[in-house]
Amino acid sequence: MADRRKATVAVVGAGDFIGAAIARKFAREGYTVFAGRRNADKLESLVAEIEAEGGVCMGRGLDARNEDEVSRFLGDADAHAPLEACIFNIGANVNFPLLDTTGRVFRKVWEMGCYSGFLVGREAARLMLPHGRGSIFFTGATASLRGGVGYAAFSSAKFGLRAVAQSMARELGPKNIHVAHLVIDAAVDTAWVRERIRRMAGEGAAGEPEPGQLMDPASVAETYWALHNQPADAWTFELDIRPYRERW
Amino acid sequence: MADRRKATVAVVGAGDFIGAAIARKFAREGYTVFAGRRNADKLESLVAEIEAEGGVCMGRGLDARNEDEVSRFLGDADAHAPLEACIFNIGANVNFPLLDTTGRVFRKVWEMGCYSGFLVGREAARLMLPHGRGSIFFTGATASLRGGVGYAAFSSAKFGLRAVAQSMARELGPKNIHVAHLVIDAAVDTAWVRERIRRMAGEGAAGEPEPGQLMDPASVAETYWALHNQPADAWTFELDIRPYRERW
Amino acid sequence: MADRRKATVAVVGAGDFIGAAIARKFAREGYTVFAGRRNADKLESLVAEIEAEGGVCMGRGLDARNEDEVSRFLGDADAHAPLEACIFNIGANVNFPLLDTTGRVFRKVWEMGCYSGFLVGREAARLMLPHGRGSIFFTGATASLRGGVGYAAFSSAKFGLRAVAQSMARELGPKNIHVAHLVIDAAVDTAWVRERIRRMAGEGAAGEPEPGQLMDPASVAETYWALHNQPADAWTFELDIRPYRERW
Amino acid sequence: MADRRKATVAVVGAGDFIGAAIARKFAREGYTVFAGRRNADKLESLVAEIEAEGGVCMGRGLDARNEDEVSRFLGDADAHAPLEACIFNIGANVNFPLLDTTGRVFRKVWEMGCYSGFLVGREAARLMLPHGRGSIFFTGATASLRGGVGYAAFSSAKFGLRAVAQSMARELGPKNIHVAHLVIDAAVDTAWVRERIRRMAGEGAAGEPEPGQLMDPASVAETYWALHNQPADAWTFELDIRPYRERW
Repeated sequence: MADRRKATVAVVGAGDFIGAAIARKFAREGYTVFAGRRNADKLESLVAEIEAEGGVCMGRGLDARNEDEVSRFLGDADAHAPLEACIFNIGANVNFPLLDTTGRVFRKVWEMGCYSGFLVGREAARLMLPHGRGSIFFTGATASLRGGVGYAAFSSAKFGLRAVAQSMARELGPKNIHVAHLVIDAAVDTAWVRERIRRMAGEGAAGEPEPGQLMDPASVAETYWALHNQPADAWTFELDIRPYRERW
Repeated sequence: MADRRKATVAVVGAGDFIGAAIARKFAREGYTVFAGRRNADKLESLVAEIEAEGGVCMGRGLDARNEDEVSRFLGDADAHAPLEACIFNIGANVNFPLLDTTGRVFRKVWEMGCYSGFLVGREAARLMLPHGRGSIFFTGATASLRGGVGYAAFSSAKFGLRAVAQSMARELGPKNIHVAHLVIDAAVDTAWVRERIRRMAGEGAAGEPEPGQLMDPASVAETYWALHNQPADAWTFELDIRPYRERW
Repeated sequence: MADRRKATVAVVGAGDFIGAAIARKFAREGYTVFAGRRNADKLESLVAEIEAEGGVCMGRGLDARNEDEVSRFLGDADAHAPLEACIFNIGANVNFPLLDTTGRVFRKVWEMGCYSGFLVGREAARLMLPHGRGSIFFTGATASLRGGVGYAAFSSAKFGLRAVAQSMARELGPKNIHVAHLVIDAAVDTAWVRERIRRMAGEGAAGEPEPGQLMDPASVAETYWALHNQPADAWTFELDIRPYRERW
Repeated sequence: MADRRKATVAVVGAGDFIGAAIARKFAREGYTVFAGRRNADKLESLVAEIEAEGGVCMGRGLDARNEDEVSRFLGDADAHAPLEACIFNIGANVNFPLLDTTGRVFRKVWEMGCYSGFLVGREAARLMLPHGRGSIFFTGATASLRGGVGYAAFSSAKFGLRAVAQSMARELGPKNIHVAHLVIDAAVDTAWVRERIRRMAGEGAAGEPEPGQLMDPASVAETYWALHNQPADAWTFELDIRPYRERW
C-alpha cells in the first residue's frame, strides 16, 4: 500500500470486475476511491476489501443518467480531495435481432453506455479544469469500433461514447486534462463469463475457458494506471487490450 | 422523367438540400416519393416542384423520434406501392464547448440524429423483409468518423448512427437488403452555408465560396441513386463524398 | 455499344477478371482501351472479344515494375487519345507463415502490388495534369485494411498502395484529377476461385459456391464506371464492395 | 539502475532520439542493449552514456535492409542472453511532390521503413519462438494512418509496416510473443526539429516551440517499457502517443 495521497479517483460503474479492479489499484497507490454504482449495497464487499488492505473507499449509489446525481457524486469526491482521475466504466452489453430491438431498449442502452459517459466526463472536466490537471478515462469495447449483428443498440452507444471521448480529448488535452479511451477487446474473467462459456459448450467437458482466453481484471487495471502516469508530453488517447490468445 | 414504377422511396429528413435532391432524383426515375419532415408546410415547394415535372410526391409532417409516426409514415408508403428505398437524412449539426453542452442538447441531438435513424431503419427493414429486397441508406458526415472540438453531441450521434448502419448491414445484407452509409465530407451548397461563409469572412469581398468548395445537392443525390442500382453481388456499404477542392 | 470517344482508358493488370471486366465496360462506353499485362499473349481473347463487340482494345505486354515500360505504355495511350482514366489492378495475393515469408517474396509482392501502383499513378498524373482532368483508380482488397495471419507480404503491399492512393488523392484532387481506392472485400467469381472452393470442400457435394457468395466481375466494373462519372463536386475517394451474402 | 538481467533488448534504428531513449530505459532496467544503426560511430556517445550509468550496451553498425546483417545482429544479441525485446525504430520521413518522387526514392524509403521492419520482426520472432516469449515493437507515425500530400513514399512505407505488425501480432500473439505498433503522432524534441521550427518561423522571435508542443524522447520510451511489462492476458497491440498540446 503506497502512502495516502491527497487525491481522489472516481470510478463510475464500479462493477464486480474491471471497475472494482481499477478501484483496488488506485486505492493501493494511495488514492481515496469514490466508487459509484446503481446499487450501493453491491459495493459493500469492495469497500470492505479495500479497507482491509488499509485503503479508503466510499461506496455510493449512483444513477449516472441523472445529471444532479453525477454532479453531486463527483463534487463530493473533489470536496474530499482533488479529483485526479475519473473512470467511466458502465456498459450495457445486449444482443437482439434488429426487429426485436425495441425503442425502449435502444434508448436505455444509450442512456447507460453513452449519455452517462458524457455527463460523467463533462462534470469531471468542470472540476478538474480549475486544478489544471486530471485524467478522464472511458472503457470501450470491440463494439466501439464494429457494429456486429444484433448489436445495433450496444455498438451505437459504444461508438457514441468513443466520439464523446475524442471530442473531449481534443478540447481538454491542451488544458492538461488527459482523456483516453480503452478498447477492451475480449472477455474479462468473471463468474458470468465462465458460466456463459459453460452454457455455450453445453454439458460437455469443454466448458472451461482456455488459458489465455480471458483477462484478469487486475491485469486490465494495470493499463489504466499506466495511462494515468504517462507524462503530459507523451499521452495516449486510445489503445486496445486483449489476451494473447484472443483472435481478432 | 422515367416511366412510373410501382415502387416508393421514403425520404426522412427531406430538408431543402440533400434530402430534397434525393427526392427529385428518385421521382425523375419513376418512384413515388414519400417525403417526411418535421414541418409539413416546408415540403410544399418540393412537392409542387416534383409534380410540375410530372412526378409524384407525398409530403408528410413527421417527427421521426416517434415510433408510431415512423411506423405509420413508412407503412403508408409501403401500402401505396412496395417500399424499395428508404433514406435517412436527418442531421443536427451543433457545436458547443464541452461545459456548455447541456444534457438536454446532447439528448436532443442524439434523438434526431441517431435514435430516429434506428427507428427508421428498423421499420423500413420490417416492411422490406417480406418483399425480399430494398435499400436503406443513412447520411453520415465528417463527424461520423471524427469527434472534433465542440462536437461531443453531434459526433456522438453520428458515430452512433454509423454503428446502427453497420449492424443493420451485417444482419440484413444476407437477406438481400442493401444498407449503406454515406459520409458527406464537405459543405453542401445552400443559402445557409453561403451565408455562414460570408459571415466568417467578415464584411470583406472574400465571402464567396471558391469554385469546387461546395457540393451541389443534385451531385450528391447521384451517388445515392448509383448505390441503389448496384447489383446485389457487388454492394457498397460505405463511401465518402467530397468536392474536388476539399482538403481532408 | 456507345459512340466512339476521343479518349483512352488504361487498365494495368488486365487480368481475366476484374481488369478484363473494366476494359469491356469502358470499351462499350466508347473508350479506346489500352490493356497491359505481364504476358501479352494472354490478352488476345480480351482484345478479340472487345473487337467483336465493335470496340477498340490494344493489348500490350507490360512489366509495371519498370518505370520506362509504364511511362511508354501510358504515353502511347495518351498519344492515341487523351488518357481519361487509368485503373491499377495488379494484385499478388499470397499467404505464407511468417517464418516462411522470404525477403525475396516480400519484395516481389510489394513490387507488384505497391511499387507498380505508385509508378502507374504518378505517370498517369503526369499525363492528365496538362489535360486538367482524369480518373486514377486503385483496386484494393480486404487486406488493404487488415493484416491477417499469413498476409504480412500481401497486406503490407496493399496497405502501402492505399497510402499512395490517399496521398495522390489529396494532392491531385484540387487539380481536378479524381483518385479513388476500391476495397474489393470478397472473392470474385472466377474459375480459380471456384476450383479453390471445391478443393477446400474436399470431394463432397458442397463444393459449389453459394448464391451471392461470389461477385461477377462485370458487377464490380459497374462501380468503377459510376465513380468515373461522378461530378467533380461530389467525388468518392474510397468505398468497399462485397456481395450481399458476404460476412464481414 | 536495476539489477542486471540475463536478457537482451535489440534496438534497430538506435538514432539520437527515441531509439536512444529506449536503449537507455531498458539499460537502466537491467537489460543488455544491442543498438544497431547504419553508422556505428554515431553510437559511441550512447554506448558511453549507458556505460557511465553502469549499464551495458553493444553498438553495432547495421544495414537493416540486409537479411544476413539483421540475422547476425539479432543472433548475436540472443547468443549473449535471451532476446526478450526487439524494437524497430527506423524511419525515413521525406516529403516530395508526387511528380518529383522518383522510383528510386520510393523504393529506398520502403526498404528502410518497411522491408527492414519485416526482416527485423521475422528474425526476432525466429529467435523468440523457442524461448516461448518476447516483445516486438514497431515505431509508427501519423503517416502510418494518413497519406498526406507529399507523403506517397513515406506513408506508403509506414502503412506497410503497420500491416506487417498486425499480421505478426495475429500470428505470434497466441505463441506468447507480444507485437505492438506505436503511433508517434507528434514531433519529438530534437535539435533538428527545433531548427526546423525556427526556419519555418523565419527570423521572428516565435521560432521557439511552445511548451507541450514537443515530446521528450524519454517520455516516449516510458510507454515502450510499459507495453513490455503488460501481463500476457491484457496486451495492447496499438496505441497513439502525442503531447498534450498537439492538435489532431
